[in-house]
Amino acid sequence: MSAQPATDLPEFAGRHIGPSESDVEAMLSTVRHASLDALVDHALPGAIRTDGPLRVEPAASEAAVVEELRGIARRNQVMTSMIGLGYYGTLTPAVIQRNVLENPAWYTAYTPYQPEISQGRLEALLNFQTVVSDLTGLTTSGASLLDEATAAAEAMTLMRRSSKAAADAVLLVDQHVFPQTLAVMQTRAKPLGLPVVVADLAGVESADDLRTAAGDRAVFGVLVQYPGADGELRDWRALASAAHEAGALVTAAADLLALTLAAAPGEWGADVAVGTSQRFGVPMGFGGPHAGYMSVRPGLERSLPGRLVGVSVDTEGAPAYRLALQTREQHIRREKATSNICTAQVLLAVMASMYAVYHGPVGLAAIARRVHGHAATLVEGLTAAGVDVQTSVYFDTVTVAVPGRADEVVSEAAQRGVNLWRVDGDRVSISVDETTDLRDLEAVWSAFGATGRQEVSIGELQWPTELVRTSDYLTHPVFSSHHSETSMLRYLRRLSDRDFALDRGMIPLGSCTMKLNATTEMVAVTWPEFAHLHPFAPAHQTEGIRDLIGELSAWLCEITGYDAVSLQPNAGSQGEFAGLLAIHAYHEANGQSQRNICLIPASAHGTNAASAVMAGMKVVVVKTAAGGDVDMDDLRAKVDQHRDDLAAIMVTYPSTHGVFEDTITELCALVHDAGGQVYVDGANLNALVGLARPGKFGADVSHLNLHKTFCIPHGGGGPGVGPVAVRSHLAPHLPNHPLAAEAGPEGGVGPISAAPYGSASILPISWAYVRLMGGAGLTRATQVAVLSANYIAARLREHYPVLYSGHDGVVAHECILDLRELTRRSGVTVDDVAKRLIDYGFHAPTMSFPVAGTLMVEPTESEDRHELDRFCDAMIAIRREIAEVESGDVAVADSMLRNAPHTAKALAGKWEYPYDRSAAAFPVGVDAADKYWPPVGRIDGAYGDRNLVCSCPPPEAFEG
Amino acid sequence: MSAQPATDLPEFAGRHIGPSESDVEAMLSTVRHASLDALVDHALPGAIRTDGPLRVEPAASEAAVVEELRGIARRNQVMTSMIGLGYYGTLTPAVIQRNVLENPAWYTAYTPYQPEISQGRLEALLNFQTVVSDLTGLTTSGASLLDEATAAAEAMTLMRRSSKAAADAVLLVDQHVFPQTLAVMQTRAKPLGLPVVVADLAGVESADDLRTAAGDRAVFGVLVQYPGADGELRDWRALASAAHEAGALVTAAADLLALTLAAAPGEWGADVAVGTSQRFGVPMGFGGPHAGYMSVRPGLERSLPGRLVGVSVDTEGAPAYRLALQTREQHIRREKATSNICTAQVLLAVMASMYAVYHGPVGLAAIARRVHGHAATLVEGLTAAGVDVQTSVYFDTVTVAVPGRADEVVSEAAQRGVNLWRVDGDRVSISVDETTDLRDLEAVWSAFGATGRQEVSIGELQWPTELVRTSDYLTHPVFSSHHSETSMLRYLRRLSDRDFALDRGMIPLGSCTMKLNATTEMVAVTWPEFAHLHPFAPAHQTEGIRDLIGELSAWLCEITGYDAVSLQPNAGSQGEFAGLLAIHAYHEANGQSQRNICLIPASAHGTNAASAVMAGMKVVVVKTAAGGDVDMDDLRAKVDQHRDDLAAIMVTYPSTHGVFEDTITELCALVHDAGGQVYVDGANLNALVGLARPGKFGADVSHLNLHKTFCIPHGGGGPGVGPVAVRSHLAPHLPNHPLAAEAGPEGGVGPISAAPYGSASILPISWAYVRLMGGAGLTRATQVAVLSANYIAARLREHYPVLYSGHDGVVAHECILDLRELTRRSGVTVDDVAKRLIDYGFHAPTMSFPVAGTLMVEPTESEDRHELDRFCDAMIAIRREIAEVESGDVAVADSMLRNAPHTAKALAGKWEYPYDRSAAAFPVGVDAADKYWPPVGRIDGAYGDRNLVCSCPPPEAFEG
Repeated sequence: MSAQPATDLPEFAGRHIGPSESDVEAMLSTVRHASLDALVDHALPGAIRTDGPLRVEPAASEAAVVEELRGIARRNQVMTSMIGLGYYGTLTPAVIQRNVLENPAWYTAYTPYQPEISQGRLEALLNFQTVVSDLTGLTTSGASLLDEATAAAEAMTLMRRSSKAAADAVLLVDQHVFPQTLAVMQTRAKPLGLPVVVADLAGVESADDLRTAAGDRAVFGVLVQYPGADGELRDWRALASAAHEAGALVTAAADLLALTLAAAPGEWGADVAVGTSQRFGVPMGFGGPHAGYMSVRPGLERSLPGRLVGVSVDTEGAPAYRLALQTREQHIRREKATSNICTAQVLLAVMASMYAVYHGPVGLAAIARRVHGHAATLVEGLTAAGVDVQTSVYFDTVTVAVPGRADEVVSEAAQRGVNLWRVDGDRVSISVDETTDLRDLEAVWSAFGATGRQEVSIGELQWPTELVRTSDYLTHPVFSSHHSETSMLRYLRRLSDRDFALDRGMIPLGSCTMKLNATTEMVAVTWPEFAHLHPFAPAHQTEGIRDLIGELSAWLCEITGYDAVSLQPNAGSQGEFAGLLAIHAYHEANGQSQRNICLIPASAHGTNAASAVMAGMKVVVVKTAAGGDVDMDDLRAKVDQHRDDLAAIMVTYPSTHGVFEDTITELCALVHDAGGQVYVDGANLNALVGLARPGKFGADVSHLNLHKTFCIPHGGGGPGVGPVAVRSHLAPHLPNHPLAAEAGPEGGVGPISAAPYGSASILPISWAYVRLMGGAGLTRATQVAVLSANYIAARLREHYPVLYSGHDGVVAHECILDLRELTRRSGVTVDDVAKRLIDYGFHAPTMSFPVAGTLMVEPTESEDRHELDRFCDAMIAIRREIAEVESGDVAVADSMLRNAPHTAKALAGKWEYPYDRSAAAFPVGVDAADKYWPPVGRIDGAYGDRNLVCSCPPPEAFEG
Repeated sequence: MSAQPATDLPEFAGRHIGPSESDVEAMLSTVRHASLDALVDHALPGAIRTDGPLRVEPAASEAAVVEELRGIARRNQVMTSMIGLGYYGTLTPAVIQRNVLENPAWYTAYTPYQPEISQGRLEALLNFQTVVSDLTGLTTSGASLLDEATAAAEAMTLMRRSSKAAADAVLLVDQHVFPQTLAVMQTRAKPLGLPVVVADLAGVESADDLRTAAGDRAVFGVLVQYPGADGELRDWRALASAAHEAGALVTAAADLLALTLAAAPGEWGADVAVGTSQRFGVPMGFGGPHAGYMSVRPGLERSLPGRLVGVSVDTEGAPAYRLALQTREQHIRREKATSNICTAQVLLAVMASMYAVYHGPVGLAAIARRVHGHAATLVEGLTAAGVDVQTSVYFDTVTVAVPGRADEVVSEAAQRGVNLWRVDGDRVSISVDETTDLRDLEAVWSAFGATGRQEVSIGELQWPTELVRTSDYLTHPVFSSHHSETSMLRYLRRLSDRDFALDRGMIPLGSCTMKLNATTEMVAVTWPEFAHLHPFAPAHQTEGIRDLIGELSAWLCEITGYDAVSLQPNAGSQGEFAGLLAIHAYHEANGQSQRNICLIPASAHGTNAASAVMAGMKVVVVKTAAGGDVDMDDLRAKVDQHRDDLAAIMVTYPSTHGVFEDTITELCALVHDAGGQVYVDGANLNALVGLARPGKFGADVSHLNLHKTFCIPHGGGGPGVGPVAVRSHLAPHLPNHPLAAEAGPEGGVGPISAAPYGSASILPISWAYVRLMGGAGLTRATQVAVLSANYIAARLREHYPVLYSGHDGVVAHECILDLRELTRRSGVTVDDVAKRLIDYGFHAPTMSFPVAGTLMVEPTESEDRHELDRFCDAMIAIRREIAEVESGDVAVADSMLRNAPHTAKALAGKWEYPYDRSAAAFPVGVDAADKYWPPVGRIDGAYGDRNLVCSCPPPEAFEG
């Protein structure tokens, strides 16, 4: 009964791991193994087992870890940032911070693939899309991308796909684009063979000018920063016309706050807008996470990368939200996908959308005017003192010429507590933001030896008329209904109540590892010392977080057996891309740049194939054998066939079928013998930690998902962190960053995310997890994860066939329940079972991956036996419901399965089902008093795709 | 549409105040006044209006206020506290801190007077009661008291009531009681004429010994500290027998953590146990708030002061919780009440109960053993170095003799970061706790010039057998089901989901002012610099919080027009008591100690009368005139009749009828002329702030409720803060404190709460409120509060008579809807309407106070017009439902009103009502998707009082 599961384990392990010691005993008896060690010995091939315990620090208590984090925090120096470049000080409304960012109902939610139980965050994301499309003046916005730089890279490929320009046409980028954005685009352009030309586009007025600027080459796309990195707000109308005339598309990388005052990109001819919503209430966080955005003009909707929320209807015809056009996504289209992006930045997009809801259009414009007023006051003081301000039409940023004195001025400002940006030896740039006050301006003036006025005046805009915004935005009532804190609080509660997250019950998603996100792991994220650092702040101000990153990196190497790790990738997809780039660069460095074949088993995550294509590789699929393993004969044949141009194989271990394949060592040897590299997808690392190390059993590179294995919460579909870990020969080819030499190897592949350390502000979560568990705790967690999956398999096997398993039916950390035969016999689909599970108070397992017609269940170590049993009981009861259909007693159309989920509204209405209300709504294990009610009935996804609506529907839509 | 309601107001005012500027215009038009000023001019008597704006600091922004608070926090120095005396370091489980203390679903809830929508916190309180009764070994525990010292004072009067000892019998207190506990008992004993004798009770073995110890007087009660303040754990069996033989009762002031290892008071003969649950996860907070407790043996249940949660059944026979035996309470029994306690410490009791749920019996005992192990290790080191440890049988505290060197040792320890307690010049005491580690012990050893072992050993207890606990505790499954964080998180969510709090909708409780508790106001409460201060820490370590208290006091004086304020009272009832004590002491100082008559209008809060009795006064009731005002003729008569012994009048202003009575100035003059003092109950101060000051319009003293007017959340029924504010002539008679000279006047009335500044850790909330609103914001809030009440009165007047009002039907900040005639005609009661409002998604208004058969509605300024309209629409719809009963179309027993609230379970079951399910569950204004479902149907309160069950029922009770 103690929280402490075993005497040699830290107390926290008993908090993180669900089953108590006595539960573990009972479960072992169900799976017929004598001990956890015996089970694991049986499950894992001996050849890959590690020889000793993990060498990470001994675990510390929760209180001690919080104290250590406070010590680390104190070694970060939070200055007033006027660096800008896409990262600005912002005031997170306290009601949003506490009730979104610090609320498990929001942060422990999963990606809204089950839309009936995700209506709250889908509405929030629809608000986000409305904010973006309204402000950019473009009709359709996606539900967030990873950051501004990767959004720009996505825009680049979108423009390439959508332009009819010649195959050798170039991307033309204005010289005033943010440096990290340019660098990320270059990293992404290289493997695709897309030429990127940087030029001064200010004078381009015709298609000829455009061609000249591109060095006399055809142009498929143009990208401009709006306002530019130098602060100048330019009128790009002529450029846009010229580009369109030349068959090119135009992307504006635009600042959302500036757009409340400046003419919208969609109004001056941009086809695409990208950017970040960071300054809408999301702290800088030393680089992330924040939500990037992309919006497009009509006609480009279906080319949008990433997730898109749309409006559809449920069975009763009521409006209901769900992800639209999912067929574009990588998990379905694989190597033909638009992009490899999977995890987005949902939690941060929710925050940004709520910032807009809280302030409304008038409030946002007032903030923008105040920011601009501070900039104008700053300029006035500088100009009066004879300082040469070079920016003429500015919103919040100006460039100042200080010939030969840039370092001196930056240093003077730093001594006064303000970070400026050194453009070069002769220029600095200064960005003001929502948090700027007169004291900050005085510090800047003083650094220049100037003085300014004693108050800030917020006058009329002195901009050329064509740059001034005149169109409305955020006219939907949601943006003017929740300006009081009381109303905002209730709106947040109402939305979160519509959703099912880990704070209500188990989310047994195979391959997604929805485990505990412990509060102690989360606390430091919102501390100012982590939240308010600019990613390009001087290194000596950020020692604390950098040391934390260093320690976490070392632990990840120890855990995975690799030699080096980069934490820059801010999603698993980014990690995959970075890993494949490293392989490509390695072959290139060895004079083998012809090696471009990437072998991928049929059962792989779709992202693998999409990433390989982005890395310039050609995908060759390896078959699956009857037992679900990689077909080794086919592998041998494919390796032979591509021996000279084999770049890599990408496999998941344990496999996506939830099995520890015995052949893994042989597979690695085969590929290595042919000169290829082995990429092990870390999606299933939760089954390996402390037991086996990919870097030691044959792999060359893996990406990890800190949001799966290392307790970063899923946030409803992001943030994620996808570090790439490599053996030493690949280490020189890890990502690096143009603005932070210490963030990667010299000669690395370039940046793959906007910030040097990606989503740095959430790394304390994973750091704390390792610190709290220690080596023994981590290993125990893995053992219990394997036990729990086997326990479920054992309890359900007689009711549903377990599709794949290893020796004696042992599975790894997840198991696949095969419904295909049941479906054939009864017509009851996996969809029916998934939706019926909602009535039972569960989130469905993963549906139809990796095998159509199956459910993949991953309980994780955090679910206690009570919850595991509740799930098994529900599945067994559902099996009985299926049996009634099978036997013909109930027609499938009339069954509780097909009509699930049942809403409260349906219960109150006319009841035309052959079963009674109570059986529908309160099946076994559901306490009526604590029932989770889905807010809508089953959603018709196809209807929404046919009638695409991706911004807030009018209130009338919900009437009746 | 802007958040900013009017150009001269701070932005935060637009966040705190619900109605926007345009809403205010529309509402003014409904109430037919041209402006807020015009409305207020009409409502308030000109004679009492203030002349100018409030002189408090100009408002600052939310970000600026948080920065100021950080600055204040930095001026508190958090040391390791080994002071003890009832306040100990404790580790608040992060999952509880975030999901209870920082979760509006818990902290914005009201007192569970509507049990159907309070089942979550009632279950948590039942857990609390189970923890207390199990650990103390006494059958019945209340749902929390204010602190240990006031609990001891309540035990004193309980023992007096229950003992048959002679009227002049004494309370006998062991010398080792905590000094603040003794002092509070003395303050409380004095006006009641109860003699308190302090003696060494260690040797008492017979009734004769007892009488001798009492100075040869009869004894009605005995109180001992267990373990004693000196740390000694004594066997009190002989004392208990002797006391019982002598007809006295025995109270143990017992440490809950020690009771996991030590024989329970109920097992060695105590009749009553009192104490604090602070060290069960509630930070010290410079003194509070924490939950005090009291438990009693069989036969004393009905004498328990404060709230008691019991189990009853709902209409369907399902177990349901509610407050039991409410007829004991002051709001019903008035001057005959057991106690004046009203607000308890629900939020803190919930935290403490959850600490026990999270750790369970094994975990709690492990913590206690670890604490004891540290104490033993400490003693070992000290003894080895020749230090004279005087305590022989100890749990966590020892007294050490250092003849002549106590100050020096304390100072040496402080230099090493540890606060010890100076008992006197020759002795210090040292308490270890859950947070103590070896470094702390080393610091103590070093302060004594000693060294100790390098590790802590946790061996067997070396206590005499009769002191060792052998009985079980916390055997109910709830204490062994939620030890993983995942399970704990879900339990907290499940319970909070059963409740209706401000985060779901309006709680329009007349006289309780349920307004916004803004997040920014709340943030500092959990900062370590406020949370981890011991109340008796040296003054120079607590400058920040003391300065904050000083500033808040000054602002409260400015707002109320008084000259001095004491923040020590930790509930409104305590403030009343302190105010009346000040009046009594004032008369006494003037040689008029015969003045003991307290006039109280018939409409007063019941607490007033109960407090007057506690202060030794005699209550004389003044009649209410037809219009609801004080009957001035009766007042004149009563004043004349008691002219020579008139102590005071207690009135509420505006009146409990929600009216600004014109006669207030005349009333004050009448009482003053007769030599009496005027006590204005501050319950309705929300109608006065910025408009009128009691201290200027004739009152001498008021208590305020910071949890009503100044934004401290109700916490589900506590904490509260009830400062007492007085004019200068009463200032010398404010509370003070024996251990903190700076906390009150020399010669004051003594302490009335355990801690010098009461619930100090939540004072930053009210400080922040004033700081954020500024004078103009505060005044505007009052105006809008008055407007909103008048708006509701105007919209509902044609449907329900508004019982009382001033000029032209203008009410103050609340209005009374009179249902008596409707009830007479239809049989529909206020209860029916209150329960039916749950179906509409509202918490009921105040029922039958101050007039039976009415509902009192106080919307506050924080509700926006949308919510006000939603409420009015619901009340109008309910009026139509009543009309159907009135007309005879529907029998009252068959009506939706009588069968409300309707549960989801009922909806799914057999439906035997004449109306349809949809009308029952989804009446106008209720969106099925967002419906709040009450977890139980209407509760039968009487059943539970007849069959009193006040600890957790077995799980089987909930089956079927």
